[in-house]
Amino acid sequence: MVSSAAPRAARERRARPVGAPIVVGMLGAGVVGEGVLRLLRDNAATIEARLGGAIRVKRIIARREDKVRSDAVPAGLVSFDPSELLSDPEIEVVVEVVGGLEPAGTLVRRAIEAGKSVVTANKALLAAHGHELIELAEARGVDLYFEASVGGGIPIIRVLREALASDRILAVRGIVNGTSNYILTRMRDERVGFDAALRGAQAAGYAEADPTLDVSGGDAAHKLTILATLAWGAKIDPNQVDTEGITAVDGVDVEHAERFGYVIKPLAVAREHEGGALELRVHPALVDRRSVLASVSGALNAIHVEGAALGPCLLSGAGAGALPTAVSVVSDIVDVGRNLLADARGRVPTRAFRGENLVERPVRDPGEQRCRWFLRFSGHDRPGVLARVAGILGAFDVPIAELVQQERSAAGGAVGIVVLTHEARARDVRDALREVDGLASIAAATRALRIEEG
Amino acid sequence: MVSSAAPRAARERRARPVGAPIVVGMLGAGVVGEGVLRLLRDNAATIEARLGGAIRVKRIIARREDKVRSDAVPAGLVSFDPSELLSDPEIEVVVEVVGGLEPAGTLVRRAIEAGKSVVTANKALLAAHGHELIELAEARGVDLYFEASVGGGIPIIRVLREALASDRILAVRGIVNGTSNYILTRMRDERVGFDAALRGAQAAGYAEADPTLDVSGGDAAHKLTILATLAWGAKIDPNQVDTEGITAVDGVDVEHAERFGYVIKPLAVAREHEGGALELRVHPALVDRRSVLASVSGALNAIHVEGAALGPCLLSGAGAGALPTAVSVVSDIVDVGRNLLADARGRVPTRAFRGENLVERPVRDPGEQRCRWFLRFSGHDRPGVLARVAGILGAFDVPIAELVQQERSAAGGAVGIVVLTHEARARDVRDALREVDGLASIAAATRALRIEEG
Repeated sequence: MVSSAAPRAARERRARPVGAPIVVGMLGAGVVGEGVLRLLRDNAATIEARLGGAIRVKRIIARREDKVRSDAVPAGLVSFDPSELLSDPEIEVVVEVVGGLEPAGTLVRRAIEAGKSVVTANKALLAAHGHELIELAEARGVDLYFEASVGGGIPIIRVLREALASDRILAVRGIVNGTSNYILTRMRDERVGFDAALRGAQAAGYAEADPTLDVSGGDAAHKLTILATLAWGAKIDPNQVDTEGITAVDGVDVEHAERFGYVIKPLAVAREHEGGALELRVHPALVDRRSVLASVSGALNAIHVEGAALGPCLLSGAGAGALPTAVSVVSDIVDVGRNLLADARGRVPTRAFRGENLVERPVRDPGEQRCRWFLRFSGHDRPGVLARVAGILGAFDVPIAELVQQERSAAGGAVGIVVLTHEARARDVRDALREVDGLASIAAATRALRIEEG
Repeated sequence: MVSSAAPRAARERRARPVGAPIVVGMLGAGVVGEGVLRLLRDNAATIEARLGGAIRVKRIIARREDKVRSDAVPAGLVSFDPSELLSDPEIEVVVEVVGGLEPAGTLVRRAIEAGKSVVTANKALLAAHGHELIELAEARGVDLYFEASVGGGIPIIRVLREALASDRILAVRGIVNGTSNYILTRMRDERVGFDAALRGAQAAGYAEADPTLDVSGGDAAHKLTILATLAWGAKIDPNQVDTEGITAVDGVDVEHAERFGYVIKPLAVAREHEGGALELRVHPALVDRRSVLASVSGALNAIHVEGAALGPCLLSGAGAGALPTAVSVVSDIVDVGRNLLADARGRVPTRAFRGENLVERPVRDPGEQRCRWFLRFSGHDRPGVLARVAGILGAFDVPIAELVQQERSAAGGAVGIVVLTHEARARDVRDALREVDGLASIAAATRALRIEEG
């Protein structure tokens, strides 16, 4: 629990020496860490003018596997022992760019407990323990900033926390995983399948050696959790996000979508419903090829915020990459530094974003979602398949809007039937497909993708 | 000049009573003012949670012509005498939504001198006197926030001042005048001329009765001045912006542009060149119909920022309208309120954005700009016109890339020749057209529009 004496605790600490630089310690010296050090060095004069004071990096804690041979990482500052940073009273701001739940979580907690403000890019940590860390930071009277955790260089956290502080947010949705977007873009542009596109993404540096978290939708679910937490003050568990990765999207789906005037994009969607329930989902979806989201290609991210008074507002840009991420990290250091210089730590009451009565928000049953669907059936080359499929869809209240049946191949084998539906409930679609996929005349699991409007 | 004792002056003032609401006075009760009051009322609980304290509007100064019969404007708070607001020591934040240079300028100065922080939506005032007002605010230790002055509900000021504080900005460009964008969109979608589109914009509430400032490019030049000031810390006069309105764009131009795969958009462009010179221009231009800016239709605004480390980042949304503008105004009140609650007025050193050595920035000669051009010539129906035009363009180093000559009408009269050029210097194009337009075989002034890449 947060002690009511928290604000006083912040004030009790000794005043900073006037004119002293903001002293920073870094946890992590990987590619983002190196980008942070590079920006701090190359833009030192500009940053000092904009901050109103200088920034001094005093200590860099590397992992044994970090390649710290960059000219931007002064060897004399590097150590492998985090306690050298955490126990140094001079270090006021800790930058965490290690990533992952542990040891990052323990180190961030220890930094906050030691009275240091923290800037982090760690979406997994924030999605899993954000509320706890924010409470801890508020209790200790320090700042916890995390712009780089969502959307890389896109300032979506700042926009939700500050620019839209006056408005009621209706929806936040967009493309928040650059790896998935890159893979789907490649599948479309180069007419290759998922595996080839993934290898291309790995070769181009847009996907990790183990891409599971990205292509499974897990990374996007983490980010959506953070965005929804800020937008509605809700306490959300990433597991409450209805999550579907892009691994099951086939080159054939990309081509069919295109024929109908759509592009397949990896979406994350959060929306408030009547009564306060939140709809939270991550999945690939068909979007109109003339829509703005359709034009967000490659590794770019885009986030669409809808405010009750503001209307729609879109932000797009580099969602990942060492330098764009470093821009967000260093801008957070500047903001935290401004708070330190003004003796105003804890100035933005992030915790209050939860709202007093809004801590627990019901999450809407994903089965209740109504939308149009793209369904691709694989039928054995037998007469009557189409009639059976159509009959089942009708029985489950999944109305067909358009239908394309591939010509039978001379060699026999599977035949594709693609259906675009009118609006139908997710639950009904699921139930209908369970029955369809049980038919002897169906050769493989039916592919179902949502069509996202607007 | 700013006294070096400025930060101390801010500290000397009496502390706020703990738990007291932020007390606001409003200058102006027009449509934006009403929107501000509506948001403050309807979202009071959310805003209080996000701010960490309540906001109380104590006084509203209306002009005689304001229609203050809205349910959002409590009659008991309305007065017509600004000194009732300016001399009230309890009022900490003054919201200026009167607009125009005077009396707004005098009132803002008096508010700052009285030690009040100011939130304003007044782009004309900021473009003309921004540096002076920011210096005055810093000297008095109060905040001057102006998110609503550019891009309505789009948080571009915050993004430049905070999110990109770490990066070197290379270019800021986009569509910042919703009225012009609405008119050009209507000309394209409804195949009408400028006058009809303007009347439509007025009927739809997207253009003032006197639309001069919007359609002349003056409004966009004001906004570009503010953006360039923040991006490069430059002291710019709006008169230094090479400004061309949309009034001369003809329905024929819109159609020709479309035939070549372009859309005509009202652009504002600021770019830093080698050596620090700034390119500053406002004009209609042809943009590729597949570009993101081409998809920004109607009264929407979009601003594209390019950072050295960030790469490209786009923000788009409602550029005007009472409620989107009010969102920005109220979010500024929240931010200023956070500074008041944390006793951290002047926390963001806006003035420092000028940088110590960057106050005077050379502005690049507009004649030096190199780009591709759309040229539409009106020739009398005489043989040899085309050859003469082509000869002059060649002589002035304006290379023709594509050319379309309309068929001669049976009745004779003017004949259109449309040329797309390869890259050419603005000065050379201007000189060539002066010679072309002096030809006896040319019936009317040649239309020249830039083609904006990327």
